[in-house]
Amino acid sequence: MIGTTVRKMLLENEDDFLISSDNVATLSESNSLEHALLVLTKIGYSRVPVLNKEEQLVGLVSLSQVVDQMFGIEDLEPENLANKKVVDVMDTDIPMISLPLDLEKTLHLLVNDSFIPVVNELKQFTGIITRKEILKAVNHLAHELEIEYDVIEKVNT
Amino acid sequence: MIGTTVRKMLLENEDDFLISSDNVATLSESNSLEHALLVLTKIGYSRVPVLNKEEQLVGLVSLSQVVDQMFGIEDLEPENLANKKVVDVMDTDIPMISLPLDLEKTLHLLVNDSFIPVVNELKQFTGIITRKEILKAVNHLAHELEIEYDVIEKVNT
Repeated sequence: MIGTTVRKMLLENEDDFLISSDNVATLSESNSLEHALLVLTKIGYSRVPVLNKEEQLVGLVSLSQVVDQMFGIEDLEPENLANKKVVDVMDTDIPMISLPLDLEKTLHLLVNDSFIPVVNELKQFTGIITRKEILKAVNHLAHELEIEYDVIEKVNT
Repeated sequence: MIGTTVRKMLLENEDDFLISSDNVATLSESNSLEHALLVLTKIGYSRVPVLNKEEQLVGLVSLSQVVDQMFGIEDLEPENLANKKVVDVMDTDIPMISLPLDLEKTLHLLVNDSFIPVVNELKQFTGIITRKEILKAVNHLAHELEIEYDVIEKVNT
């Protein structure tokens, strides 16, 4: 369990943790890999959420998964990308969380992924929680905890 | 400044922080972008260190920087990749650190980058420090600090 003071300090700027879906590039599961290649190359994120028509989160797709489809036996075959869709290459076994934020679970998931998608009760995509925002909170904690609190080793009895 | 107890707990597994260069995929500045595309697609990292002949760190190159060179006016032109080298597209204005670890600086740099390259006094690449390893230490701190220590709010005088 995470201690109350550590939790409080990490969550001081909790409102900044969620990057709203309005500000996150996504792909549709029906997009061609040609389109996905363009989006993933231009936005500067190597992996983005994939949504269905109902705005539900159905997967994550990475630039390397798309590029991998271009490798032919000898040469690069970009024409492969026109005939395949995001749904054909995306990961579907992905972590996701809902609000209110479960800090413990989120911190654990972020060890293995650079961001965790957030969904509502209808599984619709509402945003992401990123390592970047959590690391800002960690910097805050690391610098402020012992300014605001006395930290005293417990005596073993 | 980071407090002594927080520092101590974050650094408890400091030896695990450095992922040695032996275990990190790198590219040479003279590699063709064709080769870079293959390496960056197959290893599962979207950005890797670039070394010169003296094993010195000279930049970082990402999969999107390589793929971007394939976009022609209308079509994808993979043949562009054979004529260009990693040195032509890599970032050279990159953060790097040396050991012994400056925890404060490292935590700050990791807000903006998913890993920080580590170099020796000759600027030779020796490894990376990743957000993943730091987040493991943060999980440890978050769970253990208030088990091992009493944390008491300071009284303002």
